[in-house]
Amino acid sequence: MSLFITFEGLEGSGKSTQARLLYERLQIRGYPVILTREPGGTRIGEMIRRILVDLKHTEMAPTTETLLFSAARAQLISELIRPYLATGGIVLCDRYSDSTYAYQGYGLGRDLDELHAITKAATGDLMPDLTLYLDLTAEEGLERKRLAARVNRGEQLMTPSSPSSSNNAQQEPAWNRLDARDLEYHQRVATGFQELIQRDPQRWRKIDARLPVHEVAHLVELEVEPLLAQITLLEQDS
Amino acid sequence: MSLFITFEGLEGSGKSTQARLLYERLQIRGYPVILTREPGGTRIGEMIRRILVDLKHTEMAPTTETLLFSAARAQLISELIRPYLATGGIVLCDRYSDSTYAYQGYGLGRDLDELHAITKAATGDLMPDLTLYLDLTAEEGLERKRLAARVNRGEQLMTPSSPSSSNNAQQEPAWNRLDARDLEYHQRVATGFQELIQRDPQRWRKIDARLPVHEVAHLVELEVEPLLAQITLLEQDS
Repeated sequence: MSLFITFEGLEGSGKSTQARLLYERLQIRGYPVILTREPGGTRIGEMIRRILVDLKHTEMAPTTETLLFSAARAQLISELIRPYLATGGIVLCDRYSDSTYAYQGYGLGRDLDELHAITKAATGDLMPDLTLYLDLTAEEGLERKRLAARVNRGEQLMTPSSPSSSNNAQQEPAWNRLDARDLEYHQRVATGFQELIQRDPQRWRKIDARLPVHEVAHLVELEVEPLLAQITLLEQDS
Repeated sequence: MSLFITFEGLEGSGKSTQARLLYERLQIRGYPVILTREPGGTRIGEMIRRILVDLKHTEMAPTTETLLFSAARAQLISELIRPYLATGGIVLCDRYSDSTYAYQGYGLGRDLDELHAITKAATGDLMPDLTLYLDLTAEEGLERKRLAARVNRGEQLMTPSSPSSSNNAQQEPAWNRLDARDLEYHQRVATGFQELIQRDPQRWRKIDARLPVHEVAHLVELEVEPLLAQITLLEQDS
């Protein structure tokens, strides 16, 4: 048996951090586990990722974007996810096809049936056993991203940002092309995720992403725990 | 009115040369015309092209390849082909969706319905008014490519290559990842093109690619001629 777990959520929801924390925890406990991310995760995928995030690429058509994400995903599945699942291991993936529906479908208004056809081709219908949704609002997510960007630029956070400052999103320098979109877009994406969860509640678990990072990590581990019984621990070297 | 003409054929069929010759001829005659190629033709498309042709990328999954070709095509249509057709111009394109069916479908054995779904998304069902097929066998095409590669490497062609030398394809250095495939693959592609032509004979014109280059160019122009009546000539500057 194997286990395929994906992390979904808005920018700033902390899902990349949580994916990494779960990865480290499972590794310490002796489970065979890999962590990967979308788009990217393979040599070809990382090249595709570079095209996708480049701020200069303002001319990119929405269909091109969908197809590039799907190309990176197809490569990741073929090269890494399927082979590792076949060995009985645990694959953790930071974003997967749900992000396509939420961002391109709900966010950009692309036809969901068309997205489904492309996704089916890209994934060969491989679906996660469990999807962890790190839940917070679009405003909260963008605010967190902005704070992180300021810290990364080495600014002193002397002035506490007021709740109303979330309208200033477009005045802050964007960190990449996909993140540069406006609040309304991210709100549509958030609505999209909620609809996806409603359609397939058995696969999804919502986790409150506003809690402190180690509390979130604990909740994540609690959700994963029941599924670990089917995984064989790695043999110890010594 | 506008005109969308595509060139299809095996590697070595001379379609790129013929597309360029028709482009120059139409330009001299005062027609509004652009020439583009697949994959590529846009800044984003050329970046995708580089991933596709890189000889190091032996790990590329067939689905990834299809999706990358389709992404480049979607960008080309959105950025160049549709806007230019909207002005009433003539678009010449070196390869288009028929190549996807011939190479990925017939050549690599991918499911044709799946390719159709991806292509529909990428093109929005935009089909050429006319497709010129430069007809020659897979053996003839590979032989021409090999000769061209030797000329490009600056070799003296002292030894005439015998017809049986086409089995040596894999001993010659490949010029890019896509061209490096073997003869049987190219034969399946050739069969694929013939089937595509049979399915939609009104759109296709077969032209004997073994004729001298200027005779082929003349035949190409004869096929295009009846469609030019609907295009308005550019106004002369002086």
